[in-house]
Amino acid sequence: MFKRAILVIIDGLGDRPIDEFAGLTPLEFADTPNMDKFARLSECGMMYPLGRGKRPASDIAHLAILGYDIETYYTGRGPIEATGLGIEMKEGDIALRGNLASVDNEMVIKDRRAGRGSGSAPFVKELDGLEIEGVHFFVKPGAAHRAGIVMRGKNLSDAVSDSDPNEPNKPVQTVSPTDDSKEAKFTAEILNKFIATSHEILQGLKLNEFLRQDGKLPANYLLTRWAGKYNGVPTFKEQHGLSASCIAGAWLYKGIAKYLGMRVLNIPGATGMANTDLEMKFKIALGQLETQDFVFIHIKAADSLGKDGNPQGKKAFIEKIDHAMKLFQRLPDDVLFVITADHSTPCELRAHSADPVPIMFCGKGVRAGKLDAFSERTCINGTLGRIEGKDIMPHILNLMGRLPLTGS
Amino acid sequence: MFKRAILVIIDGLGDRPIDEFAGLTPLEFADTPNMDKFARLSECGMMYPLGRGKRPASDIAHLAILGYDIETYYTGRGPIEATGLGIEMKEGDIALRGNLASVDNEMVIKDRRAGRGSGSAPFVKELDGLEIEGVHFFVKPGAAHRAGIVMRGKNLSDAVSDSDPNEPNKPVQTVSPTDDSKEAKFTAEILNKFIATSHEILQGLKLNEFLRQDGKLPANYLLTRWAGKYNGVPTFKEQHGLSASCIAGAWLYKGIAKYLGMRVLNIPGATGMANTDLEMKFKIALGQLETQDFVFIHIKAADSLGKDGNPQGKKAFIEKIDHAMKLFQRLPDDVLFVITADHSTPCELRAHSADPVPIMFCGKGVRAGKLDAFSERTCINGTLGRIEGKDIMPHILNLMGRLPLTGS
Repeated sequence: MFKRAILVIIDGLGDRPIDEFAGLTPLEFADTPNMDKFARLSECGMMYPLGRGKRPASDIAHLAILGYDIETYYTGRGPIEATGLGIEMKEGDIALRGNLASVDNEMVIKDRRAGRGSGSAPFVKELDGLEIEGVHFFVKPGAAHRAGIVMRGKNLSDAVSDSDPNEPNKPVQTVSPTDDSKEAKFTAEILNKFIATSHEILQGLKLNEFLRQDGKLPANYLLTRWAGKYNGVPTFKEQHGLSASCIAGAWLYKGIAKYLGMRVLNIPGATGMANTDLEMKFKIALGQLETQDFVFIHIKAADSLGKDGNPQGKKAFIEKIDHAMKLFQRLPDDVLFVITADHSTPCELRAHSADPVPIMFCGKGVRAGKLDAFSERTCINGTLGRIEGKDIMPHILNLMGRLPLTGS
Repeated sequence: MFKRAILVIIDGLGDRPIDEFAGLTPLEFADTPNMDKFARLSECGMMYPLGRGKRPASDIAHLAILGYDIETYYTGRGPIEATGLGIEMKEGDIALRGNLASVDNEMVIKDRRAGRGSGSAPFVKELDGLEIEGVHFFVKPGAAHRAGIVMRGKNLSDAVSDSDPNEPNKPVQTVSPTDDSKEAKFTAEILNKFIATSHEILQGLKLNEFLRQDGKLPANYLLTRWAGKYNGVPTFKEQHGLSASCIAGAWLYKGIAKYLGMRVLNIPGATGMANTDLEMKFKIALGQLETQDFVFIHIKAADSLGKDGNPQGKKAFIEKIDHAMKLFQRLPDDVLFVITADHSTPCELRAHSADPVPIMFCGKGVRAGKLDAFSERTCINGTLGRIEGKDIMPHILNLMGRLPLTGS
């Protein structure tokens, strides 16, 4: 019987047939002896992360796969990112992504990613702790030009528009309410005041004076987007009864894990890119299984290579993953091992698609289907059939003998 | 990447095994080299137009397949037919089918299809524009004895019964409300008054005097059925972002296309019957692709032949379709080509059934499943699995890279 489980999510793994691969997908064309061997011993199937006809972003797909009802717990990327940056959120808080930008005197954006040289930390620390009409602002630096912003106060709403026009050489946008509530109107007002105050503060920073003297653009504006209300979310342990660790390189996935109260490890060499040290990630994952019930491993670069339209790179990276998976060849009998993706990222589209992804549940005692490969088309004939993201955790708990009884 | 799409709906294509075909269906028994070749290059599956256990009428099946939520947008056949006959509907209008009939002095129906010789136009034009207690009536002629009726006014409801008893030699029915609302009661009252006034007007027509002098039955009564409220419906372009043309011979399908704001072409030789000129329809469809994103082609006679209980005729017509489909052998790479049916019409039943129909999504870059034929039983093993009518447009948009992202 399974006592522990590993879930590997290979971001954007699914693809479509590629001409130069004779009509095979990168996963079909890649040489993957380990995954193919695992598939033979697995319950396999095809997985629609959010159901048929939905093209998932990574954040919402991960919530669904990790067993959280997205209608209840997904309120936008803001709260996930803010938690990932270390802001402890309280129910009712509004979280937003901030992007440091450079604007001219007409408030037209000259650089949407300002302050990258030094990172956003020395700029945004000047904005952290501001209070406007009883609303407290917490601002923490993210990677490069990014920041997390949290508003805490009474009567706040996440029904507010983005100030970020999402394109350069456009004027910044005034935040406006997106529904008719008093709360949305109030939140938009306060947020506009915060943005104006931030602009003043950033304009006057010594650091920006130095940049100007160097002939560089100052980081003098904080653009906002993705407002989301934090309604509270049960920890992974509360939700499923499993203690859990996260092994990831890319910061969004660490944020998701923190958001769900997982133990988040910093892995040397885990970069979130194709050069990432997968052996190190897998070794640390196996180590975590000594004390944890569940380990979530995230592997990013397959998605990035799909977005680059680079099937050769994606194929090579899949082979790198498969090679590192030799470490999973001799797992103890009480370890369930699940491999899937959070969505397809076809090289042809250079974007996420709604195409389903293969999934396998591997380990001693599952109803294995004896498939001869792990891929987008072999797994159609697996023993599991077609499932959705929300079916994964119940099936893991089922295989672990931990699913609550329905009826009496 | 697909930029354009063709959707071919072969009405009533699905069937059940036929004794004289050695237990094969008409589609399985027919010689269909073109469709079989397309199937090899396609994502195939089985499609339940309205979901399992639903036996669909053609109108509602088409709405589902064309990507409209039927709970929201299907309010009966009345509004679709009235739009098809050229009545511009407004929100809150009630539309009904009218059938010209002949009644005797006891109001017993002697002919349910009166006035066929001249068509309904010279009769119903006398009823167009009537006003009863503030409710305006628009009446337009349909094919043969048919008409479209629209009621416009305040406080109208579509919860009213049919005056048409649906059988000859029965007395006409009084319209009654089918729920307890004031609106239904009011609508039934007004409609009964309209029917009585229509009877008076039709009785007195010169045209009917001539018919009586000829020893023929007069067209002296307008039977009503299928009351439906028009709640507004987004155009196909608004709904999916795709400009669309409709290539159909049968008037109901042109009506559906007009209802959805498609460009509706009049095709020479497209009769909606087995003698229809399919080459012409397909050629014009390909021409439309020069300017339109989406072309909907409807082929009617397979359904009619099923309803006639004529498997040989259905098989021959399927072979005629396949032969004409040679025109689709060399579509440009950016054209997605979808073939399916709106429901099964088993010859044995002589009626629609709930049996699923095969579907294929054909074109460069789809996850093709290498099936060796297109049929009710081969497509079970396709890469798509079992889908519903409502899944079709999202999958087309997915393959075109046009599906909106869920999450951020």
